[in-house]
Amino acid sequence: MFKGLESYGSDELLAKLKGKNPFFICTIATTATARIPNISGAGLNSELMEYTPAGDVELIVHGEVRCCDVPPQTTMDGTSTPTPAMITKAVLELTNASYLVANAGSLIKPDVPYIQINEKHGEDIRTGKAVKNPKKIFENSKLIAQNLSKNNDYLVIGESIPAGTTTALGVLTALGYDADFKVSGSTPKNPHNLKKDVVMEGIANANLKNHIQDNNEDNNEVNSENKNNKIDPFKAVEALGDPMIPTVSGMVMGSKVPVILAGGTQMTAVCAFIKAIDSKFDFSNICIATTKFVAKDPTSDIFNIAKQIGKINIHVVNPYFEKSSIQGLKNYIKGYVKEGVGAGGAMLMALLLGYSIDNIREKIEEICK
Amino acid sequence: MFKGLESYGSDELLAKLKGKNPFFICTIATTATARIPNISGAGLNSELMEYTPAGDVELIVHGEVRCCDVPPQTTMDGTSTPTPAMITKAVLELTNASYLVANAGSLIKPDVPYIQINEKHGEDIRTGKAVKNPKKIFENSKLIAQNLSKNNDYLVIGESIPAGTTTALGVLTALGYDADFKVSGSTPKNPHNLKKDVVMEGIANANLKNHIQDNNEDNNEVNSENKNNKIDPFKAVEALGDPMIPTVSGMVMGSKVPVILAGGTQMTAVCAFIKAIDSKFDFSNICIATTKFVAKDPTSDIFNIAKQIGKINIHVVNPYFEKSSIQGLKNYIKGYVKEGVGAGGAMLMALLLGYSIDNIREKIEEICK
Repeated sequence: MFKGLESYGSDELLAKLKGKNPFFICTIATTATARIPNISGAGLNSELMEYTPAGDVELIVHGEVRCCDVPPQTTMDGTSTPTPAMITKAVLELTNASYLVANAGSLIKPDVPYIQINEKHGEDIRTGKAVKNPKKIFENSKLIAQNLSKNNDYLVIGESIPAGTTTALGVLTALGYDADFKVSGSTPKNPHNLKKDVVMEGIANANLKNHIQDNNEDNNEVNSENKNNKIDPFKAVEALGDPMIPTVSGMVMGSKVPVILAGGTQMTAVCAFIKAIDSKFDFSNICIATTKFVAKDPTSDIFNIAKQIGKINIHVVNPYFEKSSIQGLKNYIKGYVKEGVGAGGAMLMALLLGYSIDNIREKIEEICK
Repeated sequence: MFKGLESYGSDELLAKLKGKNPFFICTIATTATARIPNISGAGLNSELMEYTPAGDVELIVHGEVRCCDVPPQTTMDGTSTPTPAMITKAVLELTNASYLVANAGSLIKPDVPYIQINEKHGEDIRTGKAVKNPKKIFENSKLIAQNLSKNNDYLVIGESIPAGTTTALGVLTALGYDADFKVSGSTPKNPHNLKKDVVMEGIANANLKNHIQDNNEDNNEVNSENKNNKIDPFKAVEALGDPMIPTVSGMVMGSKVPVILAGGTQMTAVCAFIKAIDSKFDFSNICIATTKFVAKDPTSDIFNIAKQIGKINIHVVNPYFEKSSIQGLKNYIKGYVKEGVGAGGAMLMALLLGYSIDNIREKIEEICK
């Protein structure tokens, strides 16, 4: 449909949304899971990890980080890699699209106005008690989307939550999906074993072990329809998830218009959660939009996870960072960062609004300088 | 233009907004000023006063008050008078209009999702240190309105802030307007002397006494243009205002579309603040919408205050509560409550959307039952 876009599944929805009015929402949250050493690259070190979501949206709104001295970035020996917030900021400036920040539960509150969905950040999922009252988070979020979607043509919803692929793995596992070694990560060496250990410890502490093992045995025999009915999705998030998942799911289920889920494998956890709530949910009115860096990531498999859940169309944007003069952006190609803060979906939104992928990359470069 | 509507000034703007898509925002805030005995009727007693804004929006969103056991209401010997939140709720249900709650700084946080503009509630204006960082509140609010207004045709902005007419008097006085004995109040016996004493104490403690006296002397000679330039409007709010005033003003100045200010004399303080920021501000693109109970209030004079500021069109809705079978609503006619939570502007919005005033009153009665 556009240069720089590859669609997996149908692009019927995108054809409908071309030239229409979007509303972009950036959801932020933190969990103490991100403090586990080496689990995430979404911050200079594990102490600063919880400042990343607040810093990301401060960058978008003010062009500078206010909550701490260090800009959010993915750690890397030698050169630093700019946070994907720069991509999202570039798109929002380029398109002049309407947007709001939604706080799903961030320990550090950003110095920007935001929609307050939930106050409390998530805990370390190893405790098996990850998220307080996910049902309420879901309902609050639903209400917001009901009202924000009425006069807009579609919503684009991104996320910034460090260690979010680990909590996504937790929810996917609890809901009976086989996501081991399939979730993405913000570093080239995806710490899959660590992620799995963390999730298994959470499962043990939440007393869901027997349950999960049952599900795993079922994997070869039953379809996902049956699997999804086995555990209350809110219990799954409460034990092993993060506040972003019920927030974004609530927005999808509250929205009166189509939704582009702007993210990587974390958004498959959102889809799995939605399907567990409503097994008949029509996924043709939503889609996942992500970056080439997630889609081509050899350490993860978004397509496999999505396929287990249902017919979920995935759109992949390639900003051709190899053409960029900025070294930090080239690090994306090497597997650093990959996605986040809705970067992939934001770029898709710009394409839908008529901007070329070269326009978009040039604006990103301008923002990075 | 409609049965139940009287327009003072031009109704050109309303003609343009007929049938268009509105977005309703209910701003909530509290100040410690409301704890002064007998200053406000917006709560069963002065202890409960600070629960009123949170309770009001909980009523709108959930149909029940969650932050405390007592529903927000204006005190009255014998019978109670329903909070104007019931009027607003009725309109939002009837019209299915999009809306959001905005927290401008409420001590009690409502149990609903909301836009976080500002965390800190206002202090007692007698201290002369009423609002922390009104400039930041204003800028946050501007940003929200820039984004919320893009895909909507007009905004309707209401407020719930107990003792808000006293803080409005404070700001109007500091900005050089003669508003003594002219602001409205939520009880039939408007405690004008108390309000004036409170404001004068605040002026003394903020060391603005000489300044204000100068202004008062000028009143007979100079036009309001000159008066407005005398004090930094942010200093006026910082000393004697409330967090609602910079919030609603920021929304007006950030909005890309027309704004209906849904409130009584408090909204004249918003207009005065806006004019002090931008002396050339075009008031033809905004208007004040209020209830007949404010407009016909013998204890206040919204028209006189507005006239001192500029050409501000005021639209007055009469819901004909005398036709109602509900005693509490009839108390409005006796001078209880009068306005609040955007009730007047909400009713105007319903008229603009094609509902008759009788439809509206019937829906209010249904909600009250």
